[in-house]
Parts: sequence; C-alpha cells; structure tokens
Amino acid sequence: MDNFKNISVSVIGSGNVAYSLIPAVINGGYTIDYVVGRNVEALQLISKLNKIPYTTDLNILTSDVIILAISDDAIAPIAQKLKTSPEQLILHTAGSVSLDVLKQYHNYCGVLYPLQTFSKKRIVDYKTVPLCIEGTTDKALETIKQLALSLSENIYKISSSERLSVHTAAVFVSNFTNIMYTMGAKILEENGIDFNILKPLILETAQKVITLHPTEAQTGPALRRDTKTMKLHLNQLDSKTQSLYSLLSNLIQDQFPRNQS
Amino acid sequence: MDNFKNISVSVIGSGNVAYSLIPAVINGGYTIDYVVGRNVEALQLISKLNKIPYTTDLNILTSDVIILAISDDAIAPIAQKLKTSPEQLILHTAGSVSLDVLKQYHNYCGVLYPLQTFSKKRIVDYKTVPLCIEGTTDKALETIKQLALSLSENIYKISSSERLSVHTAAVFVSNFTNIMYTMGAKILEENGIDFNILKPLILETAQKVITLHPTEAQTGPALRRDTKTMKLHLNQLDSKTQSLYSLLSNLIQDQFPRNQS
Repeated sequence: MDNFKNISVSVIGSGNVAYSLIPAVINGGYTIDYVVGRNVEALQLISKLNKIPYTTDLNILTSDVIILAISDDAIAPIAQKLKTSPEQLILHTAGSVSLDVLKQYHNYCGVLYPLQTFSKKRIVDYKTVPLCIEGTTDKALETIKQLALSLSENIYKISSSERLSVHTAAVFVSNFTNIMYTMGAKILEENGIDFNILKPLILETAQKVITLHPTEAQTGPALRRDTKTMKLHLNQLDSKTQSLYSLLSNLIQDQFPRNQS
Repeated sequence: MDNFKNISVSVIGSGNVAYSLIPAVINGGYTIDYVVGRNVEALQLISKLNKIPYTTDLNILTSDVIILAISDDAIAPIAQKLKTSPEQLILHTAGSVSLDVLKQYHNYCGVLYPLQTFSKKRIVDYKTVPLCIEGTTDKALETIKQLALSLSENIYKISSSERLSVHTAAVFVSNFTNIMYTMGAKILEENGIDFNILKPLILETAQKVITLHPTEAQTGPALRRDTKTMKLHLNQLDSKTQSLYSLLSNLIQDQFPRNQS
C-alpha cells in the first residue's frame, strides 16, 4: 500500500472553501505545494496563516493532487487550462458540478465536496464535516478516500446526481435557515431588542432534529392553526415580510395537513 | 423576605408548554398542588410522570400561583372562569397574549413566557430557556422573578408589546427554520439519501450565529448570484418547491444587496 501522506497537494482558490480546507489538509499530514489563484491579497493571507507558498501561475503545478476549490462556473475553464500529466489527480469541491465537467479534460479525476457552511470569520472542526467523494477510477477513488479520511470522520461515496440533491437540500437547511435568522434578528432590532434572546431557541431548534425527525419537531401557530396569533404577528410586519410569513405558514400547513401539536 | 419556595403552584394545561414547565417548577423547589385541564389522558400522564395530583375542576384551586399554560385563545375564557382570591397570582405563558387579557379579570397577575420550542418527545434543559416576565405590580413582578430564577438562568423583563415582537421573531428562527429542515429532509428522502448527512450542516448553521451575526453568516448560491447553480437546483424540484426556492433566493438577494461572500 502506498504511503498516501507522501502525496503532495496544491489547492486552487482563495475563497471560503479553500480557506477552511487548506489547514485541514495540512493537519491531515499532507504537504501543500501551492495555494493558487488570482486574488493576491487573499492568497497572501492564506499563505501567511498556513506557512505555504502561493502562486498565480497555473502552469507550475506538479503536485500529485490538484484541488479546484473555486466557484462552480470557474471549474470547466480552469480544468481546461491545467496542463497536467496523467498521474496528477484533479479534484473539485463543488456540490452542484458533475464529475463530467472535469472528465472532459482529465481522465484521472474526482470530487471531494465538503457539506458545510464556511465563512472566513468562523473556524469549523473539519473532523465533523461530511465529505462527499466520487472518482473516475478505483485508483482515483481510493486516493480521494484516503485524503478524505485524513480530513474527516464522515465520508460518503455518492454520485454526481446524488450530490446535486444533497446540495439542493443543503441550501434549504442552511442558506434558507440563515435568512430566517436574519429576518428574526431584523424584527427584534427594529424593536430595540437584543438578538441574544433568540440564541437558545435557535440552538434547540437545530439540536432537536438531531434526535427527532423534522416532521416530529414542528411547533408554532401555523401548525396549531392559531389564526388569531398569526394575525397579531402579521400586524407587526411590513407588507413584504407579511407575504413571507403567510407563505411559510401555508407551507407548514401544507406539509402538516392535520394538527399534530 | 418571604420564603418563596413555600409558595404553592397549580398549572392549567396539559400541552407541550405545561409538560416541560411542570418538572422545571418541581426541580425549582416549588410544590405543585394540581395540574388542571380537560384532556384526562394527557393529565394522567403528567400526573404520573411528576407524581402530582390532577383535576378537571377549576373551582378547587387555592394555590398561591396559578399558571395558565394553555392555548392563546383559551386564556381569556379560563381567566374569566377562575374564582380566585385577590392574593392568588395568575400567570399566563403565551408569547402573543397581552397582560391586559388577564388584567380585565384579575388585578394581581403577570406573564412567564418561556422562549423555546417544546415537544413532548424531547427534554429541554430549562436552565437555558429565556424566560420573559411581566407583572401588574412590583409585588407580582418580584414573585414572578423569584419563580423564574428557580427555573432558568436567563430572565428578561419585557413588556407585552416587546414580547409580541419576540414571539414573531421566534416563529422565523424556529418554526420557519424547522419547515426548511423538513423540506431538506424531503428532497433527500425522495432521492433515497439519509437525512443524517445534513445534521452537521444544520448544527453548524445554528452555532455559527451564536458567534457571528446572521448577516455575517450567510453563504450559498443566492448570495453569490450563482444563477447557474440555482438553475441546477430548481431542475431538481417540483413546481411548488421551485417557487419557494426562488422566493427565498430573492429574499436573500434583497437582504444582501451586494455580493458579500
């Protein structure tokens, strides 16, 4: 068996995904040759934080594994530009981009999709991040699996189409959830109340669905068909937010046809 | 100073709020005289679990404090029916019901609103639950405060109108968030993928806004104006869910006018 830790890695990208992935790869015991990109300021920050070289030149990459942690639209053009040997494994990290997009330019390639929300201001424990992996060949998949296991305890081998479903579901439970937090904060702040008061509720709402299925966890006036309370809430809101409140209350009532509270 | 723990309490109601509140009141060192209601089966369960008597008769309640942990619409009619002495303190636990609803029938009254999502299948650590309190008199407020401090470390003295804002915001961050979890679970389950894969993302999305403001925590294709990915997601969804996805993506773009990712 190969000593996978002798494998060298370069990461293309300097956004939130690259920013979180690079220290995890280093902690996993791998050597990073370069962080690569166009945004020199972002590259310099990552370079400094992780004590690794950076470059803006795609043509000097001789690493065993090259990870494209870049925006979805950039994956095909960058993959096309990469002049690599057949032994170099090319990966992307995107939820919604098929492996086929790499396959048109490289035979030896795969996907390592970290299913998590990353912001530069917040450090995530990578060991808990579900990693969705896919590879063109058994050898590719085995290398990706070893890399993934160095990063996280949570590995899923899934296809490109399954990954797209996962990414779509992730938008609902994370991006759309965060916009609900944003609306809650806005309502409070307009009334001079500290957002902190909502934090235990936010945490419990999330922790609840670790043990209960979301269909068992639903509560609130829409579920109870408590139209009087819903009217009081609507009176508090501007007309745009009223429409949103009504639409989401109807969604709850559609998904929960009978009162289960 | 009175020994508040000698105060006796009766709780009217056998729903999720009463179910969670009663053991917390007992743990706080108070004696519960009765759990009171109409649903004998639910009363018997609470009675058995907490080793307290139950009754369906509102006219036998001589406790120092009577807590109405009942649906919003039931508060006024039950408060009217209660034949109490002026020394008995009457409280309700509702987020959206003004203290005035009790005041029309009782001078000595108040509110103890636990800002949390309660389901019978899930035990909540009451010590972390924010309790919003309000009272008609200084004496009422002092008794409510002592009771609240026995239950939780998180007490907020707020007015009825502030409480309504808090309750409205709570619907967004909890009820509307849980329906997002429900939609995420549905998308995965329609594609044969286990909901477990989303759990680390759900937890991190919540934990993130404990340290970052939700406006700093937003990520995803709508924020990035990544219309290609959004189209791929829309293609996965039925027409009703497509409308929801578009509406919430527009909401994100309204709330975050420029690309901040």
